[in-house]
Amino acid sequence: MQFHHHGYVSGEPRVLEAAGTGIDRPADLPDETDVLIVGSGPAGMLLAAQLSQFPDVSTRLIERREGRLVLGQADGIQPRSVETFQAFGFAERIVAEAYNIAYMNFWGPDPENPGNIVRKTRTEDYGFKISEFPHLIVNQARVLDYFAEAAAHGPGRIAPDYGVEFLGLTVRDEGPYPVEVRVRHTAGDRSGEERTIRAKYVAGCDGARSGVRQAIGRTHSGAHALHAWGVMDVLVNTDFPDWRIKCAINAEAGNILHIPREGGYLSRMYIDLGAVAEDDDHRVRQTPIDEIIRRANEILHPYTIDVKQVAWHSVYEVGHRVTDKFDDVADDSGRMPRVFLAGDACHTHSAKAGQGMNVSMQDGFNLGWKLGHVLSGIAPETLLDTYSAERQPVAQQLIDFDREWSTLMARKPDEISDPQDLATYYLATAEFPSGFMTQYGPSTIVADAAHQALAEGFPIGKRFKSAEVVRVCDGNAVHLGHHAKADGRWRIYAFADAPTAGEDSALASWAEWMSSDEGPLRRHTPVGADADAVIDVKVIYQQPFEDVDINRVPGLFLPRTGPLGLTDWEKVYAAAPSAWTSDDVFAERGLSREGVVVVVRPDQYVAAVLPLSATAELAEFLGRSLLDQRSVPAATA
Amino acid sequence: MQFHHHGYVSGEPRVLEAAGTGIDRPADLPDETDVLIVGSGPAGMLLAAQLSQFPDVSTRLIERREGRLVLGQADGIQPRSVETFQAFGFAERIVAEAYNIAYMNFWGPDPENPGNIVRKTRTEDYGFKISEFPHLIVNQARVLDYFAEAAAHGPGRIAPDYGVEFLGLTVRDEGPYPVEVRVRHTAGDRSGEERTIRAKYVAGCDGARSGVRQAIGRTHSGAHALHAWGVMDVLVNTDFPDWRIKCAINAEAGNILHIPREGGYLSRMYIDLGAVAEDDDHRVRQTPIDEIIRRANEILHPYTIDVKQVAWHSVYEVGHRVTDKFDDVADDSGRMPRVFLAGDACHTHSAKAGQGMNVSMQDGFNLGWKLGHVLSGIAPETLLDTYSAERQPVAQQLIDFDREWSTLMARKPDEISDPQDLATYYLATAEFPSGFMTQYGPSTIVADAAHQALAEGFPIGKRFKSAEVVRVCDGNAVHLGHHAKADGRWRIYAFADAPTAGEDSALASWAEWMSSDEGPLRRHTPVGADADAVIDVKVIYQQPFEDVDINRVPGLFLPRTGPLGLTDWEKVYAAAPSAWTSDDVFAERGLSREGVVVVVRPDQYVAAVLPLSATAELAEFLGRSLLDQRSVPAATA
Repeated sequence: MQFHHHGYVSGEPRVLEAAGTGIDRPADLPDETDVLIVGSGPAGMLLAAQLSQFPDVSTRLIERREGRLVLGQADGIQPRSVETFQAFGFAERIVAEAYNIAYMNFWGPDPENPGNIVRKTRTEDYGFKISEFPHLIVNQARVLDYFAEAAAHGPGRIAPDYGVEFLGLTVRDEGPYPVEVRVRHTAGDRSGEERTIRAKYVAGCDGARSGVRQAIGRTHSGAHALHAWGVMDVLVNTDFPDWRIKCAINAEAGNILHIPREGGYLSRMYIDLGAVAEDDDHRVRQTPIDEIIRRANEILHPYTIDVKQVAWHSVYEVGHRVTDKFDDVADDSGRMPRVFLAGDACHTHSAKAGQGMNVSMQDGFNLGWKLGHVLSGIAPETLLDTYSAERQPVAQQLIDFDREWSTLMARKPDEISDPQDLATYYLATAEFPSGFMTQYGPSTIVADAAHQALAEGFPIGKRFKSAEVVRVCDGNAVHLGHHAKADGRWRIYAFADAPTAGEDSALASWAEWMSSDEGPLRRHTPVGADADAVIDVKVIYQQPFEDVDINRVPGLFLPRTGPLGLTDWEKVYAAAPSAWTSDDVFAERGLSREGVVVVVRPDQYVAAVLPLSATAELAEFLGRSLLDQRSVPAATA
Repeated sequence: MQFHHHGYVSGEPRVLEAAGTGIDRPADLPDETDVLIVGSGPAGMLLAAQLSQFPDVSTRLIERREGRLVLGQADGIQPRSVETFQAFGFAERIVAEAYNIAYMNFWGPDPENPGNIVRKTRTEDYGFKISEFPHLIVNQARVLDYFAEAAAHGPGRIAPDYGVEFLGLTVRDEGPYPVEVRVRHTAGDRSGEERTIRAKYVAGCDGARSGVRQAIGRTHSGAHALHAWGVMDVLVNTDFPDWRIKCAINAEAGNILHIPREGGYLSRMYIDLGAVAEDDDHRVRQTPIDEIIRRANEILHPYTIDVKQVAWHSVYEVGHRVTDKFDDVADDSGRMPRVFLAGDACHTHSAKAGQGMNVSMQDGFNLGWKLGHVLSGIAPETLLDTYSAERQPVAQQLIDFDREWSTLMARKPDEISDPQDLATYYLATAEFPSGFMTQYGPSTIVADAAHQALAEGFPIGKRFKSAEVVRVCDGNAVHLGHHAKADGRWRIYAFADAPTAGEDSALASWAEWMSSDEGPLRRHTPVGADADAVIDVKVIYQQPFEDVDINRVPGLFLPRTGPLGLTDWEKVYAAAPSAWTSDDVFAERGLSREGVVVVVRPDQYVAAVLPLSATAELAEFLGRSLLDQRSVPAATA
């Protein structure tokens, strides 16, 4: 964690100094705002936290509810989401608080006595296998609390405007705030009052029944299966020995997906309520909690649960729907989008694969920096076109996976030929439910794969997978990727060729070009801003850290920044194993020993892999999504 | 982290429900209180955080300063202190925020050119070697912030009474609140107002010039050496390559102890100002900061520092003083103590070994549970006699170590025969500066070593060194010791003999006895309180976790507690390696495969090691410091 950079900080360093619109931010919802976020779910709250890092952009978030969410529906947290929490600064706290999934067990009928269930297999959870982050279960309300804190502690000081309901919107062709949004206060003194807010951009994060989606006329298509599930969060006493282990239970009497929750006592159960008649007309949703508990006990036989408290329950029919496009622009209109959809507003599905909240957060992460860059004048408006293009296919992929998983989970025992196959499917697809399978195709912000062979372990279009390195300045073993906070900056990792610091090398030539008047740093950084304000450049030498003389490292990697012009010591790393680490990132990620440049987007996705010699290609690539700032003075940020 | 235990919790689970004196706690300092803490330094704040876990005890903390500490002097955090932070629930946050020491480097004169310094050796820091916790550097003010939060979030809801100064005290022989304390408001509307507060016990945590120490007439003896040091926290630019590594610099021009601080930029330097004349009369303390910086540059030659901001600076002469006894009772008086001293009030020394804050916190940890137990009626008043008996020798040991270390650090290069010897001393003594060398002798709360051979790795009288085990209920690899929060409870770890759960075994017989009417749980737990309210009993089986059938584990280890009578699943562990851990605590800690009982005090020190068969000895040992509660109704806690 870096601070004291603008002078000594006595208090909580996670609270950044207010800047720009964060200074004297109006408590009341103003008439005009750069960004209006509708809805405070995972997509909307992450978006607010991200935009709080762009204090020159004014952002408001309206939420119909009067205050914070008390009971959240979602609770499954993929490793990719924990990785995202790390970038927002609260991973270590939520990991300490959450249920960490170590195993998933599979139960089925006892062959000797098929009315009883028995444990069939134990499967180690993918979370611990696939990244340095665990697979968690924690109440969505707490995830939102942490993002709310990140939004409030960022320089933009963003807090949700609770008790304000979205009524409708109109996109005008003119003026600086072309989106007119009609809202109504639902709480407090002004309850019932209707107003019009004008925004440059609107993000509809307003859930499955999205009013924003309706207002822009997008089609949300799909269907609900004729199959119902009861879900309950319960405190019980039980003789079921796997109460604290995630289980899929496949009994003659039906199916349960059992998910222990944070805190050591609570668990969530998804209980199969069976097929629903065509003419049921959602009457199944009235199933009383006693009936759900009765079904649970029937399925768990010979075990029983004695429910002491029901924290929350619901009944739903599995639905799978996805919106055709995630913005307000027809493909051939030629204009740039003004309204975006994110989260459940554009993709809904069953909860049981633990996907929804996670994919929604990645929607917000994808959109946030793009809005921040365009509104800060760093990037061209065309960048916004990439949001729907990147996220809509991810949602479609999610729906397809979830449909398959839901079907597998809802089978009857006699439909299952191999009792191992659910476990096998679970593990074989681990990369998907971990959140790491998303791969964006080539675009203005994702380069082609011409040089992929130089860095096989950093697939272009997938998220940058961190690895341990040694920080040269202090010899600490650190995760290279964890230094990249969600601050909206592009990252360039320069993996050096064989010579060490101070020797002639391809790395040294590259660094010289990067720092030159013709290099992309000067070109894309506003005049007077810190050298690393837009692009954060790091170097990783192949040597042990003791063999890197920091006094001979190019100045590019030791910029003097902030009001005091202090040297930033934390951009220089060493790959070779040390007393505290046995890994070598070159070996682990298949990096060329001739050196390689890896460009990473603000949302942590690998954008380009290039040789150190490909300076023209790098300049061209960055120029696609970053404007020339050589005559633009720095703003407050 | 366990919660939802009293029903579903929606918000921050680290904020416990207010209870007892924490409900409607008066904002103003009342006339009477069970405990009055004087001073909000590390000892006092830890004590407040600990007593917040005893909400049936009323506790107030007065502090002369008007608000939180802004600039702290101390900054070195031993692994033992991080272990303590873990018990108070904030280790993961402070580790993320602090500077983690990986190396200590030693610099000396260049043999070719003795006016220049060169790096002589690198030494891996002991922190990472000696426990699972790192060695940190972080501002004392932040440590106090975290303890203040723990005090505020505990059921007792304790917040410091800032702006109240200690004037004096008198211990009366009678009445329920025998200590009369005279105080004066120093801030706010009541500034200047003097009052008398009556307390059952007073803890003087009021620093080196302790008024409480003076009031009870204790002798604080020792001396200051005739040697001065300048100390400064500075933001600089420099070509000194080890600016971010802890260093001892031993130049011809003098000595520097250089300690990087949290945040990536700031460092602290202790700069040798040389010998002080006998008749100096502390004039050296007026040395201006410019002179200190000039000396630093002289010592660092050929490197230089360009100071951009001085966050704090001071000049001090090394002093070593320790108080003869840490309470108000003469050895032969026969009465029990009413006033205690902790922290700098009873031991002062140089800052350079990074000891002071750490030893002070352990004073508070030692005293807190004892006051809590006596005032809650769990323990006899005689328990309070052990505080001074245990802590005074630790302080003496500290002074001795510090004197030796300071002398070594202040040597001239020509006094050093082997340039390695400072590094050697540093490593050889690692257990001491880590905070793990404290070993309390036999007493009412520390058993003799008759059965130590059954658990060589848990030395009686030293702190319980955690190890990884597998939690049976969910298969997670967890640290056995990290489940033990600073909640004032005794812990008993029952390491099982060879049979697994459900089989006849010494463990099963022991568990049966423990749960019986004659066992210590019934005896020492108030009527109606949770079975684990006073003594928290855990079991560790030798098998892999899959081979422990939780339905066959004795009920002792699965108590039903809280208002809902919910099963606590987190007291049953397995030692054998699993998918997630390669350790076996029996092998790592030299535990007898015949089983062994390890009793651990609320402040994490090993109190007794006994065979499973030694039930009478265990009952006798616990009976020394826990009262018979069989006719005492449970209080609110």
